[in-house]
Amino acid sequence: MSTDAPRPATGFVPPRTGLGVDVHAFDDGDAPRELWLAGLRWPGERGLTGHSDGDAVAHAACDALFSAAGIGDLGTHFGTDRPEFAGASGARLLAEAARLVRAAGFEIGNVAVQFVANRPKFGPRRREADAALSEAAGAPVTVTATTSDGLGYEGSGGGITAYATALVYRVP
Amino acid sequence: MSTDAPRPATGFVPPRTGLGVDVHAFDDGDAPRELWLAGLRWPGERGLTGHSDGDAVAHAACDALFSAAGIGDLGTHFGTDRPEFAGASGARLLAEAARLVRAAGFEIGNVAVQFVANRPKFGPRRREADAALSEAAGAPVTVTATTSDGLGYEGSGGGITAYATALVYRVP
Amino acid sequence: MSTDAPRPATGFVPPRTGLGVDVHAFDDGDAPRELWLAGLRWPGERGLTGHSDGDAVAHAACDALFSAAGIGDLGTHFGTDRPEFAGASGARLLAEAARLVRAAGFEIGNVAVQFVANRPKFGPRRREADAALSEAAGAPVTVTATTSDGLGYEGSGGGITAYATALVYRVP
Repeated sequence: MSTDAPRPATGFVPPRTGLGVDVHAFDDGDAPRELWLAGLRWPGERGLTGHSDGDAVAHAACDALFSAAGIGDLGTHFGTDRPEFAGASGARLLAEAARLVRAAGFEIGNVAVQFVANRPKFGPRRREADAALSEAAGAPVTVTATTSDGLGYEGSGGGITAYATALVYRVP
Repeated sequence: MSTDAPRPATGFVPPRTGLGVDVHAFDDGDAPRELWLAGLRWPGERGLTGHSDGDAVAHAACDALFSAAGIGDLGTHFGTDRPEFAGASGARLLAEAARLVRAAGFEIGNVAVQFVANRPKFGPRRREADAALSEAAGAPVTVTATTSDGLGYEGSGGGITAYATALVYRVP
Repeated sequence: MSTDAPRPATGFVPPRTGLGVDVHAFDDGDAPRELWLAGLRWPGERGLTGHSDGDAVAHAACDALFSAAGIGDLGTHFGTDRPEFAGASGARLLAEAARLVRAAGFEIGNVAVQFVANRPKFGPRRREADAALSEAAGAPVTVTATTSDGLGYEGSGGGITAYATALVYRVP
């Protein structure tokens, strides 16, 4: 069947929705990594594990875009067969994800991400994060934060979960 | 860059998607609180913790709206610098969130929330919850429920997680 | 109040967004079940528990559609009062969910699902899963996968969580 949505009205281009989730554990190694999250460096904060910089916010945004466009996920595009992305920053991955989505014939409406974690304290740098990720995607990306009221691995400081949604439009 | 999405067709106002997650623990204190969830009081059910009434469903709906409009999150708007919202009900917070989103130039399409918990048994009061939160938001809000098959803090009765998505439209 | 969204422009049919979450535990019984996930059978993989086949991906897709249309959830439609769906496959439930959403006056834009689990290895069968679930829904369904970096019940192999979003349109 077609991968395009039915068009309920003449001239109307229906958007497609996508969803992404990403989890990274905080690094407990002897040589702690820096924290990169939402496209920003967070001095003095414990870093996240991962083959890349562990930026769960940027990764969830990538997966939401891929999911909306129906072109796979992080594993499809940034797996071991593309070694040039090993260790890549979240912002670089998001820029590449946006490029791939556009190459597949879509424009990006927006991306919204919320992450769940005890740290870092996000509010003071929210606009900076939005700007960094919006610049990378070439489209509006908004980031918000919450805690889990002490529950789960997010509450015990074990890691961060980021949830993202995206809208894309097939270019006529 | 602009915070508006590109417009793929003349006269077309692209919606913006948003996402919200909220977690509250069940209260184990000596003076148990009442349960408020999805804008309703649940007599005989154990309450949730929180500075407000702990209504994770309403709070996730607020965050999805804020996220879609790109105007921050619960911490931005209902933090300690706005003491008039200390202890406010979920419905009151949602009404204020909707007002802020409209003040920022958006109309609300709809909000959909699903919560994960063992209790309360939600089905019999679903329509009542939809009505209470839709009234608060001035737009359609739908609430659904599921369990986690005994897994995680939701499965052990430790707390509730609510996930919400919202669509908003910039008013021409 | 009306359950329809306001229409920001003449002739414009605003979509409605929905969200679904579903969790199933892996089966540890003496007579292990087969794994059915994303509409596919996974030979050699441990199955999931549940009254149905435990297909968390298909179930989350159903709930996202129900949620977007505002017609309840899995419990509303596939509960004990509809015994013909006891043990039904995920694909069959999704086909019925899509039928119910259309009967309520909506067309389906698309559905996007991401699941979080250690297994099965999803990439090689992604397109097959998309095809199976898109066929069932009569609309584009995309499925993506990720792990939880060893955290939570998804990381310890206890179960799978699937998150879905959907867009539906009221048929004029």
